[in-house]
Amino acid sequence: MAVGLGPLPTLHPVAGFQLGIASAGIKRPGRKDVVVMRCAEGSRVAGVTTTNAFCAAPVIVTRERLQGAVRYLLTNTGNANAGTGAEGLVNARRACATLAQLTGVAETAVLPFSTGVIGEPLPVEKIEGALQAALDDLHENHWAEAAIGIMTTDTLPKGASRQFEHEGVTVTVTGISKGAGMIRPNMATMLGYIATDAKVAAEVLQDLVRDAANKSFNRITIDGDTSTNDCCLLIATGQAPLAEISESRGELFAKLKQAVFAVCMDVAQAIVRDGEGATKFVTVQVNGGGTHQECLDVGYAVAHSPLIKTALFASDPNWGRILAAVGYAGVADLDVSKIDVFLGEVCIASQGGRAASYTEEQGAAVMAEAEITIRIELGRGDCSETIWTTDLSHEYVRINAEYRS
Amino acid sequence: MAVGLGPLPTLHPVAGFQLGIASAGIKRPGRKDVVVMRCAEGSRVAGVTTTNAFCAAPVIVTRERLQGAVRYLLTNTGNANAGTGAEGLVNARRACATLAQLTGVAETAVLPFSTGVIGEPLPVEKIEGALQAALDDLHENHWAEAAIGIMTTDTLPKGASRQFEHEGVTVTVTGISKGAGMIRPNMATMLGYIATDAKVAAEVLQDLVRDAANKSFNRITIDGDTSTNDCCLLIATGQAPLAEISESRGELFAKLKQAVFAVCMDVAQAIVRDGEGATKFVTVQVNGGGTHQECLDVGYAVAHSPLIKTALFASDPNWGRILAAVGYAGVADLDVSKIDVFLGEVCIASQGGRAASYTEEQGAAVMAEAEITIRIELGRGDCSETIWTTDLSHEYVRINAEYRS
Repeated sequence: MAVGLGPLPTLHPVAGFQLGIASAGIKRPGRKDVVVMRCAEGSRVAGVTTTNAFCAAPVIVTRERLQGAVRYLLTNTGNANAGTGAEGLVNARRACATLAQLTGVAETAVLPFSTGVIGEPLPVEKIEGALQAALDDLHENHWAEAAIGIMTTDTLPKGASRQFEHEGVTVTVTGISKGAGMIRPNMATMLGYIATDAKVAAEVLQDLVRDAANKSFNRITIDGDTSTNDCCLLIATGQAPLAEISESRGELFAKLKQAVFAVCMDVAQAIVRDGEGATKFVTVQVNGGGTHQECLDVGYAVAHSPLIKTALFASDPNWGRILAAVGYAGVADLDVSKIDVFLGEVCIASQGGRAASYTEEQGAAVMAEAEITIRIELGRGDCSETIWTTDLSHEYVRINAEYRS
Repeated sequence: MAVGLGPLPTLHPVAGFQLGIASAGIKRPGRKDVVVMRCAEGSRVAGVTTTNAFCAAPVIVTRERLQGAVRYLLTNTGNANAGTGAEGLVNARRACATLAQLTGVAETAVLPFSTGVIGEPLPVEKIEGALQAALDDLHENHWAEAAIGIMTTDTLPKGASRQFEHEGVTVTVTGISKGAGMIRPNMATMLGYIATDAKVAAEVLQDLVRDAANKSFNRITIDGDTSTNDCCLLIATGQAPLAEISESRGELFAKLKQAVFAVCMDVAQAIVRDGEGATKFVTVQVNGGGTHQECLDVGYAVAHSPLIKTALFASDPNWGRILAAVGYAGVADLDVSKIDVFLGEVCIASQGGRAASYTEEQGAAVMAEAEITIRIELGRGDCSETIWTTDLSHEYVRINAEYRS
């Protein structure tokens, strides 16, 4: 049911970053469910993690270790190791320790990531049993396989890649992500890994991943449920023969930022396109806000309204439901007479009511498309925000009603 | 699909309050879609209305006129007269003016109420054409017919009644409501009318309807969408031979308050029981909060989570989704190790993870019931709040995808 999400584009390898996959049989025998990623010595790793107070055990461990030298990322699917209490922490650390032993690195150089069912004990022995096979599989060309290995309810793997030239050197940024439900990232999607061979100072890298996640992963929503396991990592291996980027300015930084933002945007939007039961890819653009926050409040009210989402599923230009959602978004002193609402290029509502020029046929034509932009002009100021979301279909209910059965 | 919502209970007539219904053919020929209610001279009327900034034209007119002497309430279904701009206001006032002419009261003594599709012009002439028939039908015994007349996507009419004795006099409180979707009232449900023959001072009546709505209509949610048309009216005809209640204290006030709260709670919960596609009636009780607001934040996060609602539909005791929702509710400095979650009487999660004693069979037994209580103990303070909601079923999607077609 994915909307406009095709086969993976070419994912250029990143020098100094290898990926290997294996089957641990966590949920289904034979399913590739363990992914090991190896960062060359000297790599810098930065990341952002979920704001959910019930964050999963691997998120806690990853946060502790992100400040140190990171050499391996260990990801399993089929089990989120969330809501598992003290035992969950022990299991996350134990899987990392085993990988550290096998590779001769410090235990704290391994970061754990888990995604899947919440609240069941992590089958740590199964994961340990698959580690050597994943290590044997390590290769810079295994991005596509890893994109498949981290999938859960995703129907298609998600990846993006950009290259740019600087002083005759080609720099690569490649990323993959997973996620299709429990998606209202508030830091990052469930899992996103973006690597570059540029050399980047730690603080610059951290600012970059935070800013990139804010404009991409943190602007998508499928069901408004912020996951316990959201993580987005940005790895800079420093293998490209260029000077280190030590400040958030200059030509090289600008090029890198553009590439990282583009990759993050592609893989974040891919999550929406593959949203559970999604039949529409919906852009909600809010302009003319007095603050960025009020633009986000209006955008999320529209993006989360089950009534608007079911109308989108039905291709019904029910603009009244959009006005209602704008009205309850909680914007103080909202003057409804200044608000215009557009479906695509068609002005559907103006001055608090149906636009004089609007016909139902115009709205229906836009709604029949698979990709729809809802634009709301608040007429209060200069701030804008954009959010991407999906419709709400029978399939979403089916997938989530049957998830554990 | 209504959950535990049976035929209407006995709705005792309220002296001085008459109801009459008629067919205007607004949406379907023959459907009873116009309800006129008559308040005896000297009645006091108080009410609360939606907080949605895009409130409907009739809500604007009702707000203007609530302070004055009210004699008639004019309700139509099939068209919400919302998002209709200046023309909507003209139409709402015109329908009231026609009723005022027919009955010889002041124009401002008529309050308009509309519910149905948003954004289509009110067919005011059709409504005017049905007014005389509705007036001819006026009777104190027509509560049940009026409960049917105000329905839209409701599958069953909703009403409740209480009587109490005071100084040998029987006092009656009777109410009806409608609503099944676009329900997250923030003042009241879409429409609720409660009448009593007690005599109550204006300020006392206003405080009473506000407090009663806050604990009933404002604690239910189906889809989180706050309607543009929510109104809850409390009418005191003063026909019972008792002294006026001039202060919010004393025995008579206490009895009346109890009866009004009970009627409001019954008809508010009836809306949830008849929620669009509802197969479960869910009570979300949050205890141990530091503030009432944080209890509500947690309760609504749980009540609005599509993942929890689909799990409820599937009778799946997916407590991980409940923990995740508590975790993203936005409570500052939430200590997850202090939180316990109960399904019915079964402790399912404790100290941030699955409760040691919990078995999946216990959870499944509770989830198999049609009425389910989710109780969350935050362990932070003494505040409690309770919210009522439904599951999210295939039927909800079908109803709302097909609403206008």
